[in-house]
Amino acid sequence: MINDKLPKIWHGGDYNPEQWDSQEIWDEDVRMFKLAGIDVATLNVFSWALNQPNEDTYNFEWLDDKINRLYENGIYTCLATSTAAHPAWMAKKYPDVLRVDFHGRKRKFGSRHNSCPNSPTYREYSEKIADKLAERYKDHPAVLIWHVSNEYGGYCYCDNCQDAFRVWLSDKYGTLEKLNKAWNTGFWGHTFYEWDEIVAPNMLSEEREDNVSDFQGISLDYRRFQSDSLLDCYKLEYNAIRKHTPDIPITTNLMGTYPMLDYFKWAKEMDVVSWDNYPAIDTPFSYTAMTHDLMRGLKSGQPFMLMEQTPSQQNWQPYNSLKRPGVMRLWSYQAIGRGADTILYFQLRRSVGACEKYHGAVIEHVGHENTRVFNEVAQIGSEFNQLGDTLLDARVNAKVAIVFDWENRWATELSSGPSVSLDYVNEVHKYYDALYKLNVQVDMIGVEEDLSQYDVVIAPVLYMVKEGYAAKVERFVENGGTFITTFFSGIVNETDIVTLGGYPGELRKVLGIWAEEIDALHPDETNEIVVNGSRGSLSGSYSCNLLFDLIHTEGAQAVAEYGSDFYQGMPVLTVNEFGKGKAWYVASSPDAEFLVDFLQTVCEEAGVEPLLSVPEGVETTERVKDGQTYLFVLNHNNKVESIDLKDSQYQELLTAQQLSGTVELEAKGVFILAKV
Amino acid sequence: MINDKLPKIWHGGDYNPEQWDSQEIWDEDVRMFKLAGIDVATLNVFSWALNQPNEDTYNFEWLDDKINRLYENGIYTCLATSTAAHPAWMAKKYPDVLRVDFHGRKRKFGSRHNSCPNSPTYREYSEKIADKLAERYKDHPAVLIWHVSNEYGGYCYCDNCQDAFRVWLSDKYGTLEKLNKAWNTGFWGHTFYEWDEIVAPNMLSEEREDNVSDFQGISLDYRRFQSDSLLDCYKLEYNAIRKHTPDIPITTNLMGTYPMLDYFKWAKEMDVVSWDNYPAIDTPFSYTAMTHDLMRGLKSGQPFMLMEQTPSQQNWQPYNSLKRPGVMRLWSYQAIGRGADTILYFQLRRSVGACEKYHGAVIEHVGHENTRVFNEVAQIGSEFNQLGDTLLDARVNAKVAIVFDWENRWATELSSGPSVSLDYVNEVHKYYDALYKLNVQVDMIGVEEDLSQYDVVIAPVLYMVKEGYAAKVERFVENGGTFITTFFSGIVNETDIVTLGGYPGELRKVLGIWAEEIDALHPDETNEIVVNGSRGSLSGSYSCNLLFDLIHTEGAQAVAEYGSDFYQGMPVLTVNEFGKGKAWYVASSPDAEFLVDFLQTVCEEAGVEPLLSVPEGVETTERVKDGQTYLFVLNHNNKVESIDLKDSQYQELLTAQQLSGTVELEAKGVFILAKV
Amino acid sequence: MINDKLPKIWHGGDYNPEQWDSQEIWDEDVRMFKLAGIDVATLNVFSWALNQPNEDTYNFEWLDDKINRLYENGIYTCLATSTAAHPAWMAKKYPDVLRVDFHGRKRKFGSRHNSCPNSPTYREYSEKIADKLAERYKDHPAVLIWHVSNEYGGYCYCDNCQDAFRVWLSDKYGTLEKLNKAWNTGFWGHTFYEWDEIVAPNMLSEEREDNVSDFQGISLDYRRFQSDSLLDCYKLEYNAIRKHTPDIPITTNLMGTYPMLDYFKWAKEMDVVSWDNYPAIDTPFSYTAMTHDLMRGLKSGQPFMLMEQTPSQQNWQPYNSLKRPGVMRLWSYQAIGRGADTILYFQLRRSVGACEKYHGAVIEHVGHENTRVFNEVAQIGSEFNQLGDTLLDARVNAKVAIVFDWENRWATELSSGPSVSLDYVNEVHKYYDALYKLNVQVDMIGVEEDLSQYDVVIAPVLYMVKEGYAAKVERFVENGGTFITTFFSGIVNETDIVTLGGYPGELRKVLGIWAEEIDALHPDETNEIVVNGSRGSLSGSYSCNLLFDLIHTEGAQAVAEYGSDFYQGMPVLTVNEFGKGKAWYVASSPDAEFLVDFLQTVCEEAGVEPLLSVPEGVETTERVKDGQTYLFVLNHNNKVESIDLKDSQYQELLTAQQLSGTVELEAKGVFILAKV
Repeated sequence: MINDKLPKIWHGGDYNPEQWDSQEIWDEDVRMFKLAGIDVATLNVFSWALNQPNEDTYNFEWLDDKINRLYENGIYTCLATSTAAHPAWMAKKYPDVLRVDFHGRKRKFGSRHNSCPNSPTYREYSEKIADKLAERYKDHPAVLIWHVSNEYGGYCYCDNCQDAFRVWLSDKYGTLEKLNKAWNTGFWGHTFYEWDEIVAPNMLSEEREDNVSDFQGISLDYRRFQSDSLLDCYKLEYNAIRKHTPDIPITTNLMGTYPMLDYFKWAKEMDVVSWDNYPAIDTPFSYTAMTHDLMRGLKSGQPFMLMEQTPSQQNWQPYNSLKRPGVMRLWSYQAIGRGADTILYFQLRRSVGACEKYHGAVIEHVGHENTRVFNEVAQIGSEFNQLGDTLLDARVNAKVAIVFDWENRWATELSSGPSVSLDYVNEVHKYYDALYKLNVQVDMIGVEEDLSQYDVVIAPVLYMVKEGYAAKVERFVENGGTFITTFFSGIVNETDIVTLGGYPGELRKVLGIWAEEIDALHPDETNEIVVNGSRGSLSGSYSCNLLFDLIHTEGAQAVAEYGSDFYQGMPVLTVNEFGKGKAWYVASSPDAEFLVDFLQTVCEEAGVEPLLSVPEGVETTERVKDGQTYLFVLNHNNKVESIDLKDSQYQELLTAQQLSGTVELEAKGVFILAKV
Repeated sequence: MINDKLPKIWHGGDYNPEQWDSQEIWDEDVRMFKLAGIDVATLNVFSWALNQPNEDTYNFEWLDDKINRLYENGIYTCLATSTAAHPAWMAKKYPDVLRVDFHGRKRKFGSRHNSCPNSPTYREYSEKIADKLAERYKDHPAVLIWHVSNEYGGYCYCDNCQDAFRVWLSDKYGTLEKLNKAWNTGFWGHTFYEWDEIVAPNMLSEEREDNVSDFQGISLDYRRFQSDSLLDCYKLEYNAIRKHTPDIPITTNLMGTYPMLDYFKWAKEMDVVSWDNYPAIDTPFSYTAMTHDLMRGLKSGQPFMLMEQTPSQQNWQPYNSLKRPGVMRLWSYQAIGRGADTILYFQLRRSVGACEKYHGAVIEHVGHENTRVFNEVAQIGSEFNQLGDTLLDARVNAKVAIVFDWENRWATELSSGPSVSLDYVNEVHKYYDALYKLNVQVDMIGVEEDLSQYDVVIAPVLYMVKEGYAAKVERFVENGGTFITTFFSGIVNETDIVTLGGYPGELRKVLGIWAEEIDALHPDETNEIVVNGSRGSLSGSYSCNLLFDLIHTEGAQAVAEYGSDFYQGMPVLTVNEFGKGKAWYVASSPDAEFLVDFLQTVCEEAGVEPLLSVPEGVETTERVKDGQTYLFVLNHNNKVESIDLKDSQYQELLTAQQLSGTVELEAKGVFILAKV
Repeated sequence: MINDKLPKIWHGGDYNPEQWDSQEIWDEDVRMFKLAGIDVATLNVFSWALNQPNEDTYNFEWLDDKINRLYENGIYTCLATSTAAHPAWMAKKYPDVLRVDFHGRKRKFGSRHNSCPNSPTYREYSEKIADKLAERYKDHPAVLIWHVSNEYGGYCYCDNCQDAFRVWLSDKYGTLEKLNKAWNTGFWGHTFYEWDEIVAPNMLSEEREDNVSDFQGISLDYRRFQSDSLLDCYKLEYNAIRKHTPDIPITTNLMGTYPMLDYFKWAKEMDVVSWDNYPAIDTPFSYTAMTHDLMRGLKSGQPFMLMEQTPSQQNWQPYNSLKRPGVMRLWSYQAIGRGADTILYFQLRRSVGACEKYHGAVIEHVGHENTRVFNEVAQIGSEFNQLGDTLLDARVNAKVAIVFDWENRWATELSSGPSVSLDYVNEVHKYYDALYKLNVQVDMIGVEEDLSQYDVVIAPVLYMVKEGYAAKVERFVENGGTFITTFFSGIVNETDIVTLGGYPGELRKVLGIWAEEIDALHPDETNEIVVNGSRGSLSGSYSCNLLFDLIHTEGAQAVAEYGSDFYQGMPVLTVNEFGKGKAWYVASSPDAEFLVDFLQTVCEEAGVEPLLSVPEGVETTERVKDGQTYLFVLNHNNKVESIDLKDSQYQELLTAQQLSGTVELEAKGVFILAKV
């Protein structure tokens, strides 16, 4: 349990009373929070300037007051450290807190998430205020959890960062000789003879817009270094807090598939993962599901916090549509079904000015409770009270895992050739989406995860194969596992140096193939995947595009062949029997229909069962606690759907009804089915 | 009359003899001007470097010569002050004249309209040269009007501007406390404790491209400040001139719907409004008409100057098509029909080098008068001589007004959410266009205009409601007026702070509605406006898109409802009887067909009559002088159109024919009909 | 012959052994080079940092070793000077080597082709290393040719460049008075009174993205100046080498239609032209053919080197497709057929890291010879051995020339108006493409070329007419030549100042027309070219777009007229009998069908014969040596084509077969037909 002071699904969100100077408003807030079943408020996210009006003065009285008032009314605090935006006075007095951007421009005061992670000033004062807050509130009964800074992100290219980068590199490589080799600086005569010849890679040196780099090695390391630099800032605050409050968990809110930080590395330093879920108007439901699974996977399945979602609309999308009636509730249970133990909103009360004033909130500008949105929040509040601690700490048990790796993603996207349209996350999501449609539970795992717990492991576009990973895959397959990978895998090592001797490099043995060439065509140009006979659900012909490996089998069996172009008849889908298991290779980027048929076949062969068979547009996910399963059935459609529960008997938690056989699930409706 | 020395429609344009060093050319100029009926030349627009070759030397002999020569040949001078581009020597010696751009880059010498408005050097020397010019030419009989600088525009972000901005803010707000509240700096901890913590909002601080800002308050004030800064530059020159020549009018040429300056504020400082009309290849005729009406509205209906138009093509459009035969004449009369008392061209003679050498001119590169374009100019020249002073000072009488406000426009466009596709000017133009098609005369008015002179006032997207404006609207409606406003109105005050208590804020009472939510969808997604029964021309169903207010009536009547989505059946068009008048609310962005039917209904109910009923593509407008009406009928079509003048008897001014009943108007033809 | 040490078509490419530290790899390289028939390796292209690890140390032992080892194995060296990317230490110690970019940003170390051409440091050290290399290897028997730097390009805007620009201008114009007149600085008051008031034209001064400039004069001169500055760098190295090795030819590799350098000026300083041929996925075959012809034309028909092509795919295109089987061979013979005496690849061995690791190579990452690509290379190697010196030094004899001029291109693209869609190279290619389809051999010539050797000279969009060129054209036509030019010709002189008195200026007399106006429409809007009766293959109606001159004949005959718009019936195609010849004017941008019919007519009238009549998709070109013709027939299609050789008897060089009558040419197949 995140904190057993509040043994239920937490319900609350970001609350900024410091933006108001009105007792009447503050009183209304409390009154309405109670009506909505709000029991947690995230305080102090952006109050640094208020907390520390100048270098020597700290002022927390206002915060004491807010925490106390809420607590007296039964509302706990998720306490932020306020360091996500530095005060204006600090930027003026110590310009080192200001970043230099990708274009090499020194920024001035403004916006947020704006501090250089290697600024001595920022590090000193952010650690100091975290320390002061922890010391002050360490024994306050209201504090459930610490929320360090907010949505860390962005890179800086200032001289302080450049100096720190050189130190980071020296720590990593030891000698310039090793660095020169790791980056292949013999290319274009980029050999470094002194550490301070190395400059930060941005628009002024090795990079251009859109992840284009002339040297992948330095660009990859700079991403690692900046991710680490921000993580160091987080750890400074973490340690300052931990010193005072060993028992209160500490987190920072992540952002799903945000590209710039290696969240698997971050999660190791977090007591609980929390994240902010903001689907865009066109985000597929399965993408959100995948992201929940990924956030759960960051700490190997440990339940996570949904730290932010909007009660209705956002403000920063191009078109900020309302969440339709029922959708916010539906998506809240989607999060819970995939491992969330909290549902928090951004924001509890809408601000009156600046850029987020049109972002949804529990209390809107009209200021009263007679709104559709407020009523939907209150309904969830009421349901969470009813659910109590039933679902808390329940785990998801998956037999299929999909590998996700930020460093691999960076390397893939930095690659110059073969195709600008190769999008790592999109390729991963294609595989996830097929399993989602098949109602197969999936874990999203990092490369350090133990594979032996899974029957099937899928690693789409495993371009970068880290040290020891190929051997790990071999052991997994030898022991009976099914491994699937794709085109553009096995190509490079951790510093983006090609593994010589034939693609897919270290994976060649387990896959039993050699890829002689890689064709790249405009995404509109397709080839066909023609199945040799049939295998399971696979038969006939499918479409593929993007990249096309020209492979030769070396022990593997060709399950399907290209249907056209000069490589017509060459294998496009192969499987290699290896030890007790199988290793599949998908040599091009297939259409959705292929992936459903293919993964259905793979799951059947591996004995992996779907959770339930449901109509299209209905989502399933399951949590398990003490042997009791809780099956979530989520109807994303705009119409009632019939769900065939077969012979099983279930207790539906929200209605306390007993269900079995064919039952009706309303549009946007939710079942939480406890097997009885 | 602008200047009674020349009591007719002035005919001339920008003339740059200083670009030539040839008596032969200058002689040809005069010969051809006479052939074309040119009687005004705008001199000295870009001659600063020539007038002041270094810090201490002034040289106006060349200008004496040109003014005199022209005057001896019957051509008057519109005398510019030459300050729209600083000399190269000044940029080298005093770099403070150079701007810092939106990206924070210090510019070097180049281009035009390039001076920092807060540069001490620029202010000193621009005032000084205006003073010298006024002193020298104050008694010259040729000078009809002063033309200060040229097309003021652009913003600067240098340190001088930043310092001046702090002073401007301090003058406006008095205390930082008030500023912090006005900008809601509690958001994201942006509280300022010292004035010099405030920095100019650009790409390096609060803003990004395309009017995106993290703090609308500072961004809005910076626009006001920069508009004021340039206005201060104008006023320095104005006052320097006025001191010497109290009786010669002073103007500067505006640019229609140019976004960066608050022209209503500027017009107060101008003796007569003048503007440059450059429709793009795809500009609707009604947009040009609207812009003329707006320029007329800047000084409450006072006739204005058309300071620039091209005789044929432009050079800076992507595709610079020729003005087809007759079009330049047609558009000239469009300007006159809407309040222009001058028709001036850019330019009288084409330059031989640099970026405007492919811009149309009265005298083209071929250098003689035997061209289509020259002949069209000469025809107009002849007609203007014939028209004499008949139309001078005639006014336009409109009973319908559309409100246009630059500050509201800035705020609307700076808004983060709900939709990036909301375009203030486009929404205004949609209403104007419907009235244009209905042949209803319109005034474009600012928010300071007296409303009592109108029967119908339309304020599309009145997002920002300035102090006292809601009360003014209430009085107008109480007294019998018809008021129309739309979605995204009544939301904020002058510092972009939301009016709490329910949208549309201060307008809620007069409108009798509450807007609970605002949906935003991609512009391709539409809803329907379904009329409840019918009202006037309104019946059946129309289309709407962009934003969709979910409104509840509070006294108003729902005239039409949404036809689909979860708010199907909620009101989309309401009318509230308030005192003796009515207040309409249009809750979404409707299609053109709706607006024609709706505004026809509104006009009929308010007793507003069209000028005439004419075929599509024919435009009408009317000026009135001493009780005599002059009805302009303008045929934009490529074919002859029949015009039904009914029983009225008219004298057509250009042909001196008597017209009545059904008459034919040639393609691109013009009637100026004096009622007899 | 480029160098008679190797009297055959050279076969080899860029080789970077310094990127490897493995005797095993180096041994494999040699073994595989032999298998592939490689006899030339380009060494030392990017090894500056290795050659000169610090300011005082030079190290060429590694290079001795590589040159010797290759030579011992029968492989010659194309020896580069390594100056195309400066060492990191140099950038640190002497920042003047770093460029300032178009946005005014000082760059940091990174990428390549990165040195400021006016950096004293770069000039000193690049000259010095060229000198040292030449001294060291001047007598080495392996060295066939010098390869100075690599793919010169890019502009710099630093203060050193700005200072040098002022000197360059002062040398060119002598006085500021002349410069002010040449640039027409009277416009916008840009008069310069001191040389140091002039600043480099970039985003901070006169220019914007995409060749937009406010002053064409300065922008045009800056392009000339930067092209000259880089050429000066080349010449410094050239002279340093020439001093030591008077007999070894020197070149640098050009880039076809690369926009930034005036290659006609460069070619004068090169002993042999070499270039790098990288067609994009959608480059028409005729565009590549035109570029070969242009490279041949740089030195008036002298055979050239194909210095780089990829054996299969590239890495820097958006989509890097494989070269399909046979295509690389086909394109190699296309180059040879148009004047290449070498076929070299980038690259002999793929690098393992950095941005070109996915660029095709003779030796791929797999490292062995059993690949499709290697086999295709080896086949060519074998064929070149068989061809021996047969084709070396053979010339192309064309009776039709197309004029291409970089300065005219710059001026055309810098023009503000009439149309942003006017693309000089595209207009030139349209004419070339028609002749390509007609199988008429073409020379691409500069403006200094003697015209008397041609029957037909085509100068599309001859916007800038240089001093004496109009007279040259007149003489050519008077003497019986056929001259063709188009809309937007004859407009300006060399400093972009308009020739007054009527377009097309100096060409008006020979063309016998006057263009009164130039209409510009969106490229989607078309007009018709309606032929008056018929002439040769011309009849009926064709389409045209982009620009539309409104011309009046002054002696010329109107062969076709516009079919619509207000200039319907005005001439669109005219021909003027002038002396013994004819001058044609095409007043708009016609469709491909028109150009084929038009140029067929022109060729017939001029007595120019096609090489052969072949099916569409088959290309012909011919080289001649000592009276013997070698006709290349290249089948770009994916199917066998029948070629009708008529009664001629040929020896096919690659198969040694005797051919005549109708023969079959395989898909992607090549004939080299020696007339017998």
